[in-house]
Amino acid sequence: MRVFVSGPSGVGKTTVIKEVLRKNPDLVLSVSYTTRAPRKDEQDGVDYFFVSRDTFEDMVRKGAFLEWANVHGNLYGTSIEWVEEMESRGFHVLFDIDVQGVKQAKEKGLQGCFILIVPPTIDELERRLHSRGTEDRDSLVRRMENARAELAMWNLYDYLVVNDSLLECIETVHAVILAQRASKSEMIGRLPWLHTIA
Amino acid sequence: MRVFVSGPSGVGKTTVIKEVLRKNPDLVLSVSYTTRAPRKDEQDGVDYFFVSRDTFEDMVRKGAFLEWANVHGNLYGTSIEWVEEMESRGFHVLFDIDVQGVKQAKEKGLQGCFILIVPPTIDELERRLHSRGTEDRDSLVRRMENARAELAMWNLYDYLVVNDSLLECIETVHAVILAQRASKSEMIGRLPWLHTIA
Repeated sequence: MRVFVSGPSGVGKTTVIKEVLRKNPDLVLSVSYTTRAPRKDEQDGVDYFFVSRDTFEDMVRKGAFLEWANVHGNLYGTSIEWVEEMESRGFHVLFDIDVQGVKQAKEKGLQGCFILIVPPTIDELERRLHSRGTEDRDSLVRRMENARAELAMWNLYDYLVVNDSLLECIETVHAVILAQRASKSEMIGRLPWLHTIA
Repeated sequence: MRVFVSGPSGVGKTTVIKEVLRKNPDLVLSVSYTTRAPRKDEQDGVDYFFVSRDTFEDMVRKGAFLEWANVHGNLYGTSIEWVEEMESRGFHVLFDIDVQGVKQAKEKGLQGCFILIVPPTIDELERRLHSRGTEDRDSLVRRMENARAELAMWNLYDYLVVNDSLLECIETVHAVILAQRASKSEMIGRLPWLHTIA
């Protein structure tokens, strides 16, 4: 089972993902490759796999990525091998992924559960970004532009989960994952006797 | 949102449905029309709408049923008008429905969430039916034949929920319903501002 979660900056996606992972010990967060320099406290292999641009571009040429994107000049990508290695160990993988990544994943025909976390309203998102107090005016304008562009792609997703009450939002994403576990495609492999019945 | 729940005799479907309805006050159980005589304690309009065969056949001719079936010579059907009336009052409708009904619903292109409750194994189902002690040998054989035929149609459903632990089964069906509430098709009508974003 692969779970893809997107949401605009400020919607609370990171918190929701953290809590959902805590509730699902067999679900791991996808670790991306990136060409950007590690920030302090970031660990190689935990937060990202930090690689040179040459290495990254070589991986792109070899088709090593499920999806990859250029974000403000830095490259980010999800390694197919890493995901399959986790799956072979019995884990499900959750992808913290932006709209561009979801587009690529869909174009490649990847199966999974695509969830978009949305704010109650666009004004509420702006209020939240504003109240952080961490953004200057230009950065706020840019984030709101990006947010609108991401939210406009809602039709790419299977589920739209509103983050109004954080607890309800976490509960709903968790329910989507529980439901996904019970989906026919997930269950049929675990009920081999159903195939032989008649 | 329409939720269709099937499961063979003895799998515990009725208990699961009762608990799921208790957890979802805005979800009502579909009340079927039937030509069979009411049993004692059965109330018209609560357990079934009891009608004559003439009335029922007239309704069939008028296309009044979402689905209908002949079960051991008695006719059972779900009225489109009743369902739409409930929906116009803001309720979601849960259908306790057999495989034949699901086939008809699918052929009519009805949208909804199709759930099949399955036993952990076919032997376990037989053990449960046996331990009830209410079935004679012929009846048991017939029920098991029907169960096999129903379970063989698993591919009609979106979700296969195993009733091994009753509580887990209820929790999973409830999660499927919560997830369905967050599905794009359910949510998009509730987030009109998403349509105008760009």
